[in-house]
Amino acid sequence: MKAARIVKPKEPLQVQDLETPKPKGSQVLVKVLASGVCHSDIHLWEGGYEGPEGQFLKTTDRGVKYPVTPGHEIAGSIEAISEESQSLFAKGDKVLVYPWVGEGTCPACRIGEENLCDKPRSLGIYVDGGYADHVLVPSYRYLVKIGNEEGDNLDINEAATLSCSALTAYNAVKNANLRPDDNLVVVGAGGLGLMAMQLAKAVTGAKIVAMDLEDEKLKQARKDGHADYTVNSKKEDPVKTVMELTDKMGADAVIDFVNASKTVETDMQILRRRAKVVLVGLYGGELKLNLVTMPTRAYRLIGSYTGSLSDLTELVSLAKRKIIKPLVSDRFKLDQATEALSKLKDGKVMGRGVINP
Amino acid sequence: MKAARIVKPKEPLQVQDLETPKPKGSQVLVKVLASGVCHSDIHLWEGGYEGPEGQFLKTTDRGVKYPVTPGHEIAGSIEAISEESQSLFAKGDKVLVYPWVGEGTCPACRIGEENLCDKPRSLGIYVDGGYADHVLVPSYRYLVKIGNEEGDNLDINEAATLSCSALTAYNAVKNANLRPDDNLVVVGAGGLGLMAMQLAKAVTGAKIVAMDLEDEKLKQARKDGHADYTVNSKKEDPVKTVMELTDKMGADAVIDFVNASKTVETDMQILRRRAKVVLVGLYGGELKLNLVTMPTRAYRLIGSYTGSLSDLTELVSLAKRKIIKPLVSDRFKLDQATEALSKLKDGKVMGRGVINP
Amino acid sequence: MKAARIVKPKEPLQVQDLETPKPKGSQVLVKVLASGVCHSDIHLWEGGYEGPEGQFLKTTDRGVKYPVTPGHEIAGSIEAISEESQSLFAKGDKVLVYPWVGEGTCPACRIGEENLCDKPRSLGIYVDGGYADHVLVPSYRYLVKIGNEEGDNLDINEAATLSCSALTAYNAVKNANLRPDDNLVVVGAGGLGLMAMQLAKAVTGAKIVAMDLEDEKLKQARKDGHADYTVNSKKEDPVKTVMELTDKMGADAVIDFVNASKTVETDMQILRRRAKVVLVGLYGGELKLNLVTMPTRAYRLIGSYTGSLSDLTELVSLAKRKIIKPLVSDRFKLDQATEALSKLKDGKVMGRGVINP
Amino acid sequence: MKAARIVKPKEPLQVQDLETPKPKGSQVLVKVLASGVCHSDIHLWEGGYEGPEGQFLKTTDRGVKYPVTPGHEIAGSIEAISEESQSLFAKGDKVLVYPWVGEGTCPACRIGEENLCDKPRSLGIYVDGGYADHVLVPSYRYLVKIGNEEGDNLDINEAATLSCSALTAYNAVKNANLRPDDNLVVVGAGGLGLMAMQLAKAVTGAKIVAMDLEDEKLKQARKDGHADYTVNSKKEDPVKTVMELTDKMGADAVIDFVNASKTVETDMQILRRRAKVVLVGLYGGELKLNLVTMPTRAYRLIGSYTGSLSDLTELVSLAKRKIIKPLVSDRFKLDQATEALSKLKDGKVMGRGVINP
Repeated sequence: MKAARIVKPKEPLQVQDLETPKPKGSQVLVKVLASGVCHSDIHLWEGGYEGPEGQFLKTTDRGVKYPVTPGHEIAGSIEAISEESQSLFAKGDKVLVYPWVGEGTCPACRIGEENLCDKPRSLGIYVDGGYADHVLVPSYRYLVKIGNEEGDNLDINEAATLSCSALTAYNAVKNANLRPDDNLVVVGAGGLGLMAMQLAKAVTGAKIVAMDLEDEKLKQARKDGHADYTVNSKKEDPVKTVMELTDKMGADAVIDFVNASKTVETDMQILRRRAKVVLVGLYGGELKLNLVTMPTRAYRLIGSYTGSLSDLTELVSLAKRKIIKPLVSDRFKLDQATEALSKLKDGKVMGRGVINP
Repeated sequence: MKAARIVKPKEPLQVQDLETPKPKGSQVLVKVLASGVCHSDIHLWEGGYEGPEGQFLKTTDRGVKYPVTPGHEIAGSIEAISEESQSLFAKGDKVLVYPWVGEGTCPACRIGEENLCDKPRSLGIYVDGGYADHVLVPSYRYLVKIGNEEGDNLDINEAATLSCSALTAYNAVKNANLRPDDNLVVVGAGGLGLMAMQLAKAVTGAKIVAMDLEDEKLKQARKDGHADYTVNSKKEDPVKTVMELTDKMGADAVIDFVNASKTVETDMQILRRRAKVVLVGLYGGELKLNLVTMPTRAYRLIGSYTGSLSDLTELVSLAKRKIIKPLVSDRFKLDQATEALSKLKDGKVMGRGVINP
Repeated sequence: MKAARIVKPKEPLQVQDLETPKPKGSQVLVKVLASGVCHSDIHLWEGGYEGPEGQFLKTTDRGVKYPVTPGHEIAGSIEAISEESQSLFAKGDKVLVYPWVGEGTCPACRIGEENLCDKPRSLGIYVDGGYADHVLVPSYRYLVKIGNEEGDNLDINEAATLSCSALTAYNAVKNANLRPDDNLVVVGAGGLGLMAMQLAKAVTGAKIVAMDLEDEKLKQARKDGHADYTVNSKKEDPVKTVMELTDKMGADAVIDFVNASKTVETDMQILRRRAKVVLVGLYGGELKLNLVTMPTRAYRLIGSYTGSLSDLTELVSLAKRKIIKPLVSDRFKLDQATEALSKLKDGKVMGRGVINP
Repeated sequence: MKAARIVKPKEPLQVQDLETPKPKGSQVLVKVLASGVCHSDIHLWEGGYEGPEGQFLKTTDRGVKYPVTPGHEIAGSIEAISEESQSLFAKGDKVLVYPWVGEGTCPACRIGEENLCDKPRSLGIYVDGGYADHVLVPSYRYLVKIGNEEGDNLDINEAATLSCSALTAYNAVKNANLRPDDNLVVVGAGGLGLMAMQLAKAVTGAKIVAMDLEDEKLKQARKDGHADYTVNSKKEDPVKTVMELTDKMGADAVIDFVNASKTVETDMQILRRRAKVVLVGLYGGELKLNLVTMPTRAYRLIGSYTGSLSDLTELVSLAKRKIIKPLVSDRFKLDQATEALSKLKDGKVMGRGVINP
């Protein structure tokens, strides 16, 4: 099998010939048809990211070992399967791979939230992932069937993006715990923000205010994200505008897909008493948090990281019925993996890029 | 009627003769038998408190008007009642007054969480309270019956402390959402901390680690708070100790009754992935919050402010059955109100002080 | 003021001249603009309804006293208000009245679920209601503002139906606790069923199967209720059809707006393991429940009765934004109250009938 | 390895010599130290049980295949383990086996509730279980570590009973969703009922009323179950007594460990509005359910079946700290398996019987 691997951080990925693994026990070999290219792949490629106070947080300190095959948004078809799971899956089934694999016995894993495992074993990060023509999945449990017969109505490239991009948006929306008369502010109207708006519209009934620095994105937020209102925080005072939009009460919830010092500082000024701020982005930096306001205003800051296997199953159902519509904008071949990452890093990918090995 | 009132911030309270109000509509006149003396009464007395960066946050900016009668932990007996509520209460009934009155139509009030109202009308803060021989309660809805026949087993002074001190501890414990195999760290083993430990023991089954700077309090935490472990963070490294006590995993939840820069900085270093930090204290200051760790570690910071009327009803049930035991240490007469506040301010009240008008 | 009252069960309603009440304390006098006509008004009119084994359950045994003015779906404008609530409401405000008033101190009332109060004081049942030109509301707390400025986009007749018909549907949907990949069967595609489908579509993302005996209603269920599938249980085997529609797994939830022996017997045969059956209708009769299947199949039978004040606030928000659309089909004058009830009883009202005094 | 197997229903179990399995993939071979004897083993032995209207429900119709080794309450030590799980477990570790194994991809399995799986593969029922000196566990995920170092304080026989007897009681208590001021009636003060009382006391604070036909059991309920009140429903009118104990309001929740026509008929007469009836026992029969009372009284009937892996982890924590104390009364050797089942069937086992192979 062929895989585009990071052999050394910051160097171009190498397409290597590896031995195709044979699934044992509950393992499954999946032929990769589409593998999404995610911002966090860039951190893996660069060997780390900027932490607070300018320190560089190395991926190897978090347990990553190079060389590694990136790719955690994987859609494909079952190539080989052990006897154990033959009653559930068959060779040729179209599947989505849940990449947020946990060690299996921590409190989070016990309730199916392996994305929050104490000792994660995520595919494409700690274990070889989907920038390859094949991927070994540790158990059939991590597969969500998307075809055959029904699969026709779910595009394989769009499907791939569900397992990280849409999943992260969905879990964030769930963490905001919205009611139909709530005002939700979505900070960052990029791919994740747009999907969060679609999902909030589909399952909560809340009013949606999209906030971004670019008019182009806000226009799309109105169109594809069903945003009720938009705020360009470069052109207008976001605090003043949100207060006006919410009858001077403030937002009931903010989901921040940027999560930088500057955005969260603004978030904290547009909150209604009892409001939740769901922090999702990995931009980083620090917030000077006024501690007394936390109890007196009954605020909640909620860190939200990807989503559960159950969330992914629900997303597949919504996507099949076209209630949500992921945006795939760029497609690459396996030997274009370095190009795919560079283009994303340079901010030139409008929706989601996908590799078709 | 007589009331000990703050006429001007920082000056001694004056015992004034006021006209005894006549209850109209759903109002109730309660004869005050015991009125707890709370730390937040000191803020009211001083006209505000220190905010971040040394600024003084004035109570008048939050809507307080002087002169005002403090006192929000009120137990007493019904003196006069309108026709409307006679099927529910009778003259002479022993009652606890829920002081966290809301305006009644905001989303919090609609679900019985008036303590989190958008426009609070709390007794003893925005409206005259319990440092008086009588108090006018805006509706019979804010009363919880504690006698007669059954009332005999609930001490009136202990009862008074349920409506703020114990209520705040209880809501904090609920917000921590504990499971029996969780490790809970309670920061601050004073009156509220001790009550939180009793409550956590009574209704969650979690393991309890008490943290404080004084051995005397930690000793009491073991005895009356049923703490499984104690940490003196002045004498030992709290991070190291908690990590050892939790098999290097960290705490599943921290309830911080101090909520100062220093304590919360420590809190953030002893957390297991997915952990909650419940912020309760009003000590204040700032926290430099590392934003990226919020999503990656899936942390939650939860501001917790007093509790709901339903919580208070539950507390009364627990107190009647001696499952929890509030600690009343000092008793004062109405004309000793200034002395009561001064003694509390000087840190010379070990449990809770109560005024018996 | 004029009111159409039931003076004696089964006799025509009398339009009486009554003294217009003057609001005291927190009471509010509302000028009635629209008052919905509900099936349960017929029970009130007939003095009771058929219970199991042919016994007649009398309304007077449940505390109803005649003469009484029916009408619990009330929309109007504020005519007179006490000082107490003038910061929240003004004369002329368009409001919806929450009629499911409780006594105020039971565990349900304490959390804002007065509809489930131990000792209900509902308007239009135990207290004079909305078949009148004016109604006295016991507290401003029971009002939900629907105008002015924004009120223009909410039709007063449609608004009225929110406080029982839509509210009951909404609470039932909430009790079903649906996920986007759930299959929901709605039994009874009349007014409530249709509204439940709209709401399930708006806030859950679940797949909807409408079941009824009439093709006309099922057609409407597809059109206005957004049902994904329909089953005419008179023409086809409902068990077989639902099993086919759900890949032989069965429904994850059933909401039964009929709740008769026959419908619930069918419900119990179309359930997936873990399924919920939400029982709403008042048709009555008995079910022979196989007790062992309850634990082994982990079924839940959930009785659902009207909804909370918070639910109503959420409904108003959804209706204002046209996300839901109540169906008002018939309008009557006050002196046509008897005609309105008769027409409803005869099954000749397609949507909801409304009285405009 | 040796196993006591049901070769044919109703015939004595045979101790057979079987080949000891070798664990592959994520499988684990556990040396059985204690295996509880459960009432449901009797159904397996008899080939089925009485259903409604006298019909016999055969186990083979539910997928059971004979010969089979019973035993689903298994405590032991790890004998052999694959490489995959060596970072989590070591040979010699004392473990509890979670027997309620699911197929892994249904909605219940996805959230860690494999006990409610659409297609269960439970150990000791569908797959060979613990009446043997060794058992093959399908994945290390189903193990809960109870030793070494800490294991000393958890008796191996008591530990075994946690995985069905205590687990069922615990999930039932969770399903009752109790508050501290709730009145809970526990019907059936046998092993499960007693454990439910201990658990309700430990984690809810609710008031407990034990109901049974035998004074001896009720005495134990007061002593070991911490029941606040007891009712002998043979000697006194249970409806009258419960109404008196609850100020004429009725119980907030009933957990019925018998779940026979007669007990549930009584349950339905002692309910407060909004009450839950948790049905656990497998005694069977029918209930004539009055359908109208379900919505008007807002009742909930909740079927409760064993518990989740997460519940089991919590139970182990409670048992280690002696907060709960299972009652093991009888011990048997492997070749006494038939005797163990006969004795249980004859009602001669007071607590729980355990086989030590």
